[in-house]
Amino acid sequence: MGVPIVGVVGGGQLARMMIPAALELGIEIRVLAEAEGSSARLAATQVGDYRDLDTVMAFAKDVDVVTFDHEHVPQDVLQALVAAGVSVQPGPGPLEFAQDKLRMRQRLAELGAPLPAWAAVSNPAELQEFIDAHHGVAILKTPRGGYDGHGVRVVRSGEEGADWFQNFEQLLVEELVDFRRELAQLIARRPSGEIRVWPVAETVQRDGVCNEVIAPAPGVAGGPSRLAEVATDIAESIAEGLGVTGVLAVEMFETTDSRLLVNELAMRPHNSGHWTIDGSRTSQFEQHLRAVLDLPLGDPSALDPHAVMVNILGGPQQEAITDRFEVAMSHVPEAKLHTYGKSARPGRKVGHVTVTGHDLDEVTYRARTAAEFFSDIDSSDIESSDIESEA
Amino acid sequence: MGVPIVGVVGGGQLARMMIPAALELGIEIRVLAEAEGSSARLAATQVGDYRDLDTVMAFAKDVDVVTFDHEHVPQDVLQALVAAGVSVQPGPGPLEFAQDKLRMRQRLAELGAPLPAWAAVSNPAELQEFIDAHHGVAILKTPRGGYDGHGVRVVRSGEEGADWFQNFEQLLVEELVDFRRELAQLIARRPSGEIRVWPVAETVQRDGVCNEVIAPAPGVAGGPSRLAEVATDIAESIAEGLGVTGVLAVEMFETTDSRLLVNELAMRPHNSGHWTIDGSRTSQFEQHLRAVLDLPLGDPSALDPHAVMVNILGGPQQEAITDRFEVAMSHVPEAKLHTYGKSARPGRKVGHVTVTGHDLDEVTYRARTAAEFFSDIDSSDIESSDIESEA
Repeated sequence: MGVPIVGVVGGGQLARMMIPAALELGIEIRVLAEAEGSSARLAATQVGDYRDLDTVMAFAKDVDVVTFDHEHVPQDVLQALVAAGVSVQPGPGPLEFAQDKLRMRQRLAELGAPLPAWAAVSNPAELQEFIDAHHGVAILKTPRGGYDGHGVRVVRSGEEGADWFQNFEQLLVEELVDFRRELAQLIARRPSGEIRVWPVAETVQRDGVCNEVIAPAPGVAGGPSRLAEVATDIAESIAEGLGVTGVLAVEMFETTDSRLLVNELAMRPHNSGHWTIDGSRTSQFEQHLRAVLDLPLGDPSALDPHAVMVNILGGPQQEAITDRFEVAMSHVPEAKLHTYGKSARPGRKVGHVTVTGHDLDEVTYRARTAAEFFSDIDSSDIESSDIESEA
Repeated sequence: MGVPIVGVVGGGQLARMMIPAALELGIEIRVLAEAEGSSARLAATQVGDYRDLDTVMAFAKDVDVVTFDHEHVPQDVLQALVAAGVSVQPGPGPLEFAQDKLRMRQRLAELGAPLPAWAAVSNPAELQEFIDAHHGVAILKTPRGGYDGHGVRVVRSGEEGADWFQNFEQLLVEELVDFRRELAQLIARRPSGEIRVWPVAETVQRDGVCNEVIAPAPGVAGGPSRLAEVATDIAESIAEGLGVTGVLAVEMFETTDSRLLVNELAMRPHNSGHWTIDGSRTSQFEQHLRAVLDLPLGDPSALDPHAVMVNILGGPQQEAITDRFEVAMSHVPEAKLHTYGKSARPGRKVGHVTVTGHDLDEVTYRARTAAEFFSDIDSSDIESSDIESEA
């Protein structure tokens, strides 16, 4: 075999951050971007609609494996690729669960994963029944189309879901979990079965947007802990049970009574794993490429005792992010900056900063300081359309 | 100012390894490559002859700064760029010293840098005189054109330089230094004066080609040492004295009587600094970009106590380097591989591997093991034409 060619559907920042890893490994990477000027434009070989079968088939014709920047490629397109003999990683099977929250809950329940209380409800009466059984409040989710801030709602009565029942036969309802913090277990799996697990991280949301990631999650550093073991077991059983290939992020709640409950899954590199570029021997982007090509996985161990990643939200409105280099770099020379090649917009993730080191308080302070220099955030400006679209 | 644009003259592996750093920082990088299919082809925006003024001027027209993959751009081209108002980093002044070994020795002597005994000689008789004064042996070098294995010769009589005196008015002759080992001090300097220094490294040659780099050099790890201080002082005085901007590598001999003598200079990222990609908070490629744009420099501290880089020489002849991934990655999952996108040829540097960690013996063993899986080297096959062309 010659130089392997990986085709990535989607030209966002996740595809962008695969480019350095591909270049160093000597893997050719080609991106099918939604539009000109995408984050991954340097490797974009085609611009087109990922929902159009002919477009995706043409793109997939000359690559060794197709993988993804997002989970939105329709099942009929995915299945046509597989039928044509294309290696699709992760495959349509696991992606179906990432695309349908109700099927995901059902399958995770079958696998015995710890979940928040949940139910499939078909009408306001059933929804009311669930709410009554769970302290008068619940989270209602549409099974599909949960992007751009749509599809998730806190409800206190069955009637509050009435409009959605007109469009969906069933909705997913979940208890509002009383959690201490949110964790993310990042894991990679190759088709032939090998699995590698990064240290579990804590994710901190701000106005519904992932803002900060601390790896490892405080309290699990410096050796094996029960929490880390449970998180790893959960992620391994999900990766194997669903047959996920590539990187999988399992977002979890740590409840106030110290249980872990699975919240969401992402079957691709994920914001909760951006710290691995600078903080781990193998970044999630390199590992994803190795995994989807069914190559041996890299060592995911941490390089420093602590890593803190802070997203750059918004970014300078009237100037380029590079205009902030002078002040940010002179104050925090050890900060590792990663930009996404996007124009600034309130609340939009336009990059991130990672700092690693031995003292968690100092690392956190310095990462926040560096990110602050690059961000122009006014949380009242955050558009709901940004909240779920860029995990 | 908008997104800064860095133009790199030369499409070799040094330009290639600037691409990931540029992408992460959000800097646009454009490469003027010698030919199609160069190592840096992903960022090549133009193909042409770097010795041709019109070609280089056209390339430089829309960039914020011009920098280099090599030191071979002629002085008349460099000076025309400066006259046209282009920021050239490093400038024609310091590059002149990198291009002329005799002028370099003269200038370093003026700066008081410790040097091997040397002389400018104009005929075989003067050469014989130097040889007689230095134990009957010396190193003879042509001032210019010292590439592709030409231009360096061990001589034991004045007559052995006779042919070169026909082409050069003067030659450089140096004592054959009795050295314990070779060191390289990597340093970065921005135009406004800030300097940052990486830990001094030991470089190990094999058949005249740099084969292995150990950082920090054994014996200087774990804190300040006299040797490291002297190496840093030498590199700083050279960078400042010559007005070098960007990355400078100062190659030195550590003599058997524990002195440091300056051997060669490279005014660009250098093989002796490849370990910084995985072993330092700021890689030499990121630092070079920051420096030539006159941005604050990054933290050059090491991430692990020891880093060992081993070049991949030759590489598989009949297959792609990626065909070795399975065996190499499964044996050394922590090895960081960097390929140069070149076809294999005996003795040619086609990539490198870095391993970092706490135990130097283990790190060395594992780096060599990983490199061995990728190399197809038979030292008897090394062509002299490869020896100096790819530092």
